[in-house]
Amino acid sequence: MLKRLGSIVQHSYSISIHKVSNITINSRTIMTTSKVSKSLDPASLHNPYFFQKPGQKDIWSLINETAAQAQQESGKPIVNLGQGFFSYNPPDFAINAVGEALTKPQFNQYAHARGNPNLIVEIAKHYSKAFGRPVDESEIQITTGANEGIFSIFFGFLTPGDEVIVFEPFFDQYIPNIEMTGAKVKYVEIKYPQKFDNQTVSGDDWEVDWEGLENSITDKTKIIVLNTPHNPIGKVFTEDELYRLGKLAIEHNIIIVSDEVYENLYFTKTFPRPAALAKLPELAERTLTVGSAGKSFAATGWRVGFIHGPASLIKFVTAAHTRICFSTPAPLQQAVSQGFIEAGKNDYFNKVRDDYIHKYKIFTKVFDELGLPYTIAQGGYFLLVNLSKVKVPEDYDFPLSISARGTLDFKLAYWLIKEIGVVGIPPTEFLIPSNRKGNGLEKTLRFAVCKDDAILEDAVNRLRQLKDYI
Amino acid sequence: MLKRLGSIVQHSYSISIHKVSNITINSRTIMTTSKVSKSLDPASLHNPYFFQKPGQKDIWSLINETAAQAQQESGKPIVNLGQGFFSYNPPDFAINAVGEALTKPQFNQYAHARGNPNLIVEIAKHYSKAFGRPVDESEIQITTGANEGIFSIFFGFLTPGDEVIVFEPFFDQYIPNIEMTGAKVKYVEIKYPQKFDNQTVSGDDWEVDWEGLENSITDKTKIIVLNTPHNPIGKVFTEDELYRLGKLAIEHNIIIVSDEVYENLYFTKTFPRPAALAKLPELAERTLTVGSAGKSFAATGWRVGFIHGPASLIKFVTAAHTRICFSTPAPLQQAVSQGFIEAGKNDYFNKVRDDYIHKYKIFTKVFDELGLPYTIAQGGYFLLVNLSKVKVPEDYDFPLSISARGTLDFKLAYWLIKEIGVVGIPPTEFLIPSNRKGNGLEKTLRFAVCKDDAILEDAVNRLRQLKDYI
Repeated sequence: MLKRLGSIVQHSYSISIHKVSNITINSRTIMTTSKVSKSLDPASLHNPYFFQKPGQKDIWSLINETAAQAQQESGKPIVNLGQGFFSYNPPDFAINAVGEALTKPQFNQYAHARGNPNLIVEIAKHYSKAFGRPVDESEIQITTGANEGIFSIFFGFLTPGDEVIVFEPFFDQYIPNIEMTGAKVKYVEIKYPQKFDNQTVSGDDWEVDWEGLENSITDKTKIIVLNTPHNPIGKVFTEDELYRLGKLAIEHNIIIVSDEVYENLYFTKTFPRPAALAKLPELAERTLTVGSAGKSFAATGWRVGFIHGPASLIKFVTAAHTRICFSTPAPLQQAVSQGFIEAGKNDYFNKVRDDYIHKYKIFTKVFDELGLPYTIAQGGYFLLVNLSKVKVPEDYDFPLSISARGTLDFKLAYWLIKEIGVVGIPPTEFLIPSNRKGNGLEKTLRFAVCKDDAILEDAVNRLRQLKDYI
Repeated sequence: MLKRLGSIVQHSYSISIHKVSNITINSRTIMTTSKVSKSLDPASLHNPYFFQKPGQKDIWSLINETAAQAQQESGKPIVNLGQGFFSYNPPDFAINAVGEALTKPQFNQYAHARGNPNLIVEIAKHYSKAFGRPVDESEIQITTGANEGIFSIFFGFLTPGDEVIVFEPFFDQYIPNIEMTGAKVKYVEIKYPQKFDNQTVSGDDWEVDWEGLENSITDKTKIIVLNTPHNPIGKVFTEDELYRLGKLAIEHNIIIVSDEVYENLYFTKTFPRPAALAKLPELAERTLTVGSAGKSFAATGWRVGFIHGPASLIKFVTAAHTRICFSTPAPLQQAVSQGFIEAGKNDYFNKVRDDYIHKYKIFTKVFDELGLPYTIAQGGYFLLVNLSKVKVPEDYDFPLSISARGTLDFKLAYWLIKEIGVVGIPPTEFLIPSNRKGNGLEKTLRFAVCKDDAILEDAVNRLRQLKDYI
């Protein structure tokens, strides 16, 4: 926010005045006049950070509107594997638990700012099991979705001038959430593996630019943001990678924010976490782990997230969250606490993991058939597919909103929607603009597999048409 | 945030090192050393804005814990008229609507960042009726509670160095929510009426310090925050007051944020709103109105709020909200949209208004009997009662947490809980610290009447004991 004040776009305003002089002070144009007959436009008072460039749509609107338009033109439904929402409902036990909570007055009124005590108990149990050590209730904060949780962490720790290291590609919300505190983002690449051009790779082939990481650390670095399982790559960070990262964090007194919202969807043998790293147990002292009930229970619209960390750190997250949202929806918190109890009883998370192994099996077979390389997902619910072998007709008619982006993946995404009827997300959106053109990710699209099997089968049937373009 | 950086409290940390020098840069102590055998405390990295002074509890914890302790000691329940949550459930039609929404996948997944389209339609209709003019859907933003809505407004418009005018007494969340943007708060009093010492008054007797307001406006003033019906006074701002305020806002190009979360609970003939002021229609161009489904449907735990304003202003609120919470709980949004439809059919808001007139009748009779003055509530669900005639025994034993506050209302609140068994809130907490001692509000307590009639009757019976102390 602070650093962007230099690049202000002043809105125009119409005034008819007798005598006026415009003075620009602190990013705002004010008027000194005795007789103002028409007022300044109040919209000129906006925070310039939130001024979107005219004509530049956010990626979700752009892709969804393209899909809607294509559907209308063709008259047949488009298979949307774009955004990462579930095509199906949360499990019955979770839905029934909302109904039960709603009958009790206390679950319709303000929850405590720390969170519903029943849910805090269940999340502490959940992490006790996941970390293999007792987790105290003082180490848990419930948040209004993982998004607001991460925002609360940033506000709990960052002040203007601080620096935060984010791995690139990144989940797009991190960046404004950091910058809104006045802190600055530094980017470190997870490097596109060159062999991915020609062969299917795994998350392990995507390596952190360790030299870049070490060079990015300064005495202002307060936080490193980690995302494992990683969106959009599907990489699960290894114990060795976490150890190396953790040693740097300890050496430089940096906090690790570990965004683990896909924690129940890992397909590796184990899921290493910085808060429970056998080789470096003291890393837990500086780790804040982020979880999501929405991702865990196929309920992204419920907006219940949670943070684990040492009580000495959690208290600052609590303080920020109390001001931002005050408290998290009470009936949904109570339902999630019941949800965790039921999930434990019926081995829900393991069953879902098996479901997702099956979903990936359905979806990847078409790319195996076509010889299109992909990154085998070690976790999460996305698949990154390399489409560089697909020959989009050279004279294809792209609208300006697509061609102006300047990268191949936007053209691929547009063409795939229009001609094949399948929606994927162009992943260069998860890079900083200067790093998009020429990046290996230009050749890829990200597909979400958190959909009914029938939808994935439908997508596979459509994608078979790609053989005519290879 | 910014302005508090000067008053940093450095945490202690224990280190055992070979060779180290501590350098303080930018509010943070860093270490330069080659051999660090024990790390710095990561909690030292917190944002100092969120460092609470040790031993100073927030008012809600202090009062609630005092009540819990008193209940345990006496073995009988305490009547809690402290916090403004409802003792009863939302109406059946709203609860049933949640159950219906939960059966549909789309209402369990991410809602659009602008809000559930069905709810946007209903809120636009609601305001069309309330304002007496057509309100377009582009003028509505759904937020995760009114709290996050107000926070989003502040972030949509404020940058460091800006100023915001807040009337005192104020809803406590406004202050950190403004300061977190780096903007500064300026306070203008709503003046305690001297005659309130001896007689019951009305909201009209509480007058804005107009001279103070004019003197507080500078070229940095971007927003004036209004709260009508006002918490804790119960004042509904008159058309004349809004006109005077509105003229100043227009003259100085200031946005009015009108927090109208109690909009359906006014007991005056009409409820004047800055967004629909017949005498000054152009004020609507610079007014953002805040509403609350929680307050409207007795569901403070649902966290669904809404903002109305010109589309040219709303877009900045949308941009901020999208980053802060991304979207608002989907099943509860859908239920609130159904709730508004049902409320229209069965005249729900008028019925609730009648219920509240009845609740005030139940609750005020004891103060009429005792000759204790109160401010007749013109709106909202609070009653401000002057207890200066109540003689708390001089040798009463107050704990340090109460006596250290230094104001009479904290002693009154404590004594009332312990000896009478009724919880009220000391309203000097809604003043800046330097303005608490000697302010007329010291003699008052705020009681919430959003409780079952039986609870209010119970409170009345207990409060009759006060006659022995007058």
